Amino acid sequence: MCEYAGVRLSGRQGGRDPGLLVGGLGEEALLRELRGLFAATGPDVATGIGDDAAVIEIPSGMQSVWSTDMLLEGVHFEQSWQTPWQLGRKCLAVNLSDIASMAAIPRYALLSLACPADTPLEFIIEFCHGFASLAAECGVSVIGGDTTGSVGGIIVSASAGGLVVKDKAILRSGAEVGDAIMVTGHLGDAAAGLRLLQMQKVGSYAEYSQLINAFLEPLPRMVAARAIGEAGATAMTDISDGLASDLRHICEESGTGAMLEPRSLPVSSQLQAATSRFDWNQEEVRLAGGEEYELLVTLPGVSARPLKDVISRAAGLPRAGFGE
Amino acid sequence: MCEYAGVRLSGRQGGRDPGLLVGGLGEEALLRELRGLFAATGPDVATGIGDDAAVIEIPSGMQSVWSTDMLLEGVHFEQSWQTPWQLGRKCLAVNLSDIASMAAIPRYALLSLACPADTPLEFIIEFCHGFASLAAECGVSVIGGDTTGSVGGIIVSASAGGLVVKDKAILRSGAEVGDAIMVTGHLGDAAAGLRLLQMQKVGSYAEYSQLINAFLEPLPRMVAARAIGEAGATAMTDISDGLASDLRHICEESGTGAMLEPRSLPVSSQLQAATSRFDWNQEEVRLAGGEEYELLVTLPGVSARPLKDVISRAAGLPRAGFGE
Repeated sequence: MCEYAGVRLSGRQGGRDPGLLVGGLGEEALLRELRGLFAATGPDVATGIGDDAAVIEIPSGMQSVWSTDMLLEGVHFEQSWQTPWQLGRKCLAVNLSDIASMAAIPRYALLSLACPADTPLEFIIEFCHGFASLAAECGVSVIGGDTTGSVGGIIVSASAGGLVVKDKAILRSGAEVGDAIMVTGHLGDAAAGLRLLQMQKVGSYAEYSQLINAFLEPLPRMVAARAIGEAGATAMTDISDGLASDLRHICEESGTGAMLEPRSLPVSSQLQAATSRFDWNQEEVRLAGGEEYELLVTLPGVSARPLKDVISRAAGLPRAGFGE
Repeated sequence: MCEYAGVRLSGRQGGRDPGLLVGGLGEEALLRELRGLFAATGPDVATGIGDDAAVIEIPSGMQSVWSTDMLLEGVHFEQSWQTPWQLGRKCLAVNLSDIASMAAIPRYALLSLACPADTPLEFIIEFCHGFASLAAECGVSVIGGDTTGSVGGIIVSASAGGLVVKDKAILRSGAEVGDAIMVTGHLGDAAAGLRLLQMQKVGSYAEYSQLINAFLEPLPRMVAARAIGEAGATAMTDISDGLASDLRHICEESGTGAMLEPRSLPVSSQLQAATSRFDWNQEEVRLAGGEEYELLVTLPGVSARPLKDVISRAAGLPRAGFGE
């Protein structure tokens, strides 16, 4: 259902009313909070949260773009790693990244949230505030969702929708033999951040905050993706499975091979320091680490060098590096 | 991500390769199977499964309608209750029901599936075949999804999209004072089916197969919903939380009250028999039972009686009853 009216925080705890179980706010208060929080919808949302489904207008000449991604406690995150607010932002960010990497403009999101009965209502509200904050920053309307109880940890599932000018989506299948291969950002930072989180409490590795933040607070490369699309990219994807896997996806879809020069990829100084200190295999971290949410792009070689300047300006990424 | 390329059936079992863990088919075979299974997309799907996101065309004059719903093992279903094929169909059905109850035409679905490492691959494939079978029957294209490991049971989250003629969606907010209230089907059957499943193995209550099927195999009232929309319904919703709750939603959104005559609602003979045998409160089962996926409609009183014949013919529901 699209409404936030199906909250069933099932289970019992010492005979207390399940509606009051979690933080004392009560279910009705939560529903009011969520509807209020997500009420700010764009002009193309004819009907938002509160009905069976949302109704949206698609401007003429545009195509609609949709993707979905799920995050599970114990698989993709642990509660001790981040605040609920950060988790809410990440849940939306990973979905927006898929829309951005089509060179499309994110516009809408659906959010489903399942929580155990002993989850504080404040967790849900803070999570939703985080989700809503990134939505507002990105011009995204939260048009619906689902809330339910869970018997196995917190589960968040979001879908994101966007708009692209007809036939202008950048797919994985357009790479040509001879194209240059480029990436945004410093690959490996997020994978290293995950290793640090798994090794110990966050506090212990404050000197690697850039790595940990790369994992906990990825930002979809929306501005860079559109600049890359307009600059003539032939194929694009976001790096969610790791550079090696995602490059293979482009090659498979495009019917090409690829030659990767790992040494041409920029390495952040914190990743350099961490790989030395913990004796990690740096190539493994940079090429096989997932959840980067950076962009992997192919484009004709002649366009590659000027694009570096275009994107650096467009995206406000003075330190962005590109491997060609 | 939209692709089915992120399967990470995490966890270990006696040191066996996780890719071979579950049924011996292997991850690559599963991915090929899913892409092949969901490959049949409609003419309005410009890019389906296999890229970061799907790209779809919205015909001019139409609005896009979206909804989402999640089903969790241990909360919404138990594996012993039904086959994976039935579960796949239900997962899509509950989403299509939300689209239908806007008087919209379901067109697309996204499917996210999280399974523990010891789930047989055959379970996933049979589930997806069920999902795909209902999609094909309803003209719905499966345009993307996500597959991942789970540490807490099987979790399925789907989103459904559809089309409606501009400004013709039937919302919850349009009910007027004096309208008649109507429902499709025999309310309470699904709730009774759930009680029977919770009480014992299915085999024991074969004489109540209609009740159990109403819970396990709901079919979205797509044809009836469109006929109702065209016949001048002022408000419509599907009965997923129970008649009493869903009628309250319409009243709240429309700023009306409602007078319900429970005795005018038809009761199935199996429900009659089961409530007598097990000493259930029949009113509770019929008014507070959820997961009906029948339609709750308001419309001007003068339209109510002719509509019964229109819908009975349109929906092929010779035994459908309507409470006015």
